[in-house]
Amino acid sequence: MRSSTRVAFRLALSLAAAALLGACAAPIGKDESVATLTAQADQWNRGDLEAFVAQYWNGPELTFYGKSGLARGRSELLATYRRSYPTAKERGTLAFEIVDFLPLGDEHALLLGKYRIDGEQPSRGVFSLVLARQDGRIVILHDHTTGT
Amino acid sequence: MRSSTRVAFRLALSLAAAALLGACAAPIGKDESVATLTAQADQWNRGDLEAFVAQYWNGPELTFYGKSGLARGRSELLATYRRSYPTAKERGTLAFEIVDFLPLGDEHALLLGKYRIDGEQPSRGVFSLVLARQDGRIVILHDHTTGT
Repeated sequence: MRSSTRVAFRLALSLAAAALLGACAAPIGKDESVATLTAQADQWNRGDLEAFVAQYWNGPELTFYGKSGLARGRSELLATYRRSYPTAKERGTLAFEIVDFLPLGDEHALLLGKYRIDGEQPSRGVFSLVLARQDGRIVILHDHTTGT
Repeated sequence: MRSSTRVAFRLALSLAAAALLGACAAPIGKDESVATLTAQADQWNRGDLEAFVAQYWNGPELTFYGKSGLARGRSELLATYRRSYPTAKERGTLAFEIVDFLPLGDEHALLLGKYRIDGEQPSRGVFSLVLARQDGRIVILHDHTTGT
């Protein structure tokens, strides 16, 4: 091959490799998503709200619709949780159940679930989570939680 | 070039073209997403619930968390709406406001908003929508609506 042909060929091959790599990127899995929620329940139940909130997206794109309206970003979300659940009495014991899981392309997923808080102030509700990858972890990019 | 080299070259070029095409696929836009909701508000306000529900994803992947719990698929959703809003009196006049819009890859987007129903049974609330492309249109794949 002539030198220019060889360069074009290599470029085409590199792009082809990138295309194949893109096509083979694994979508977000249900198991790794559930693992994020299991970690969160553990963090909640030992009262570590900072670790709990660190399972959310780090950045202003994070949104949360809860009983106090809209919260944006981790620090606003942490303040909301601290206000609503200041002590172990309010926090109680959190458990969740997965209702549905749907990958959205390769980098996002939708997870629907139910939660229950048992203790002195029991509550029940449902949530929709948009999950995303960030720094190799599965985090919550959007959370819409409704008490029932 | 030898024949086998030429075949490999063409294959690589085709894959490269596919890669570039993939990289250039336009994400779901805010304007076209808002257009879907505007059409829905018009359909609601003239009492055409079938057309309103046809703005949702056609298939069992469609999920809706509302005041009646979880609905799956268009026919369940239509039944829920007909039960909750049987006449023009209950339906009232629907209006919405966009709060946030975030593309999720090229094929999905997250839209947050507020709604208000004015009339004899006024209500207010917030919603999170996961939007997707289906048959060249922007449709609602998941809807989580909470009355406030």
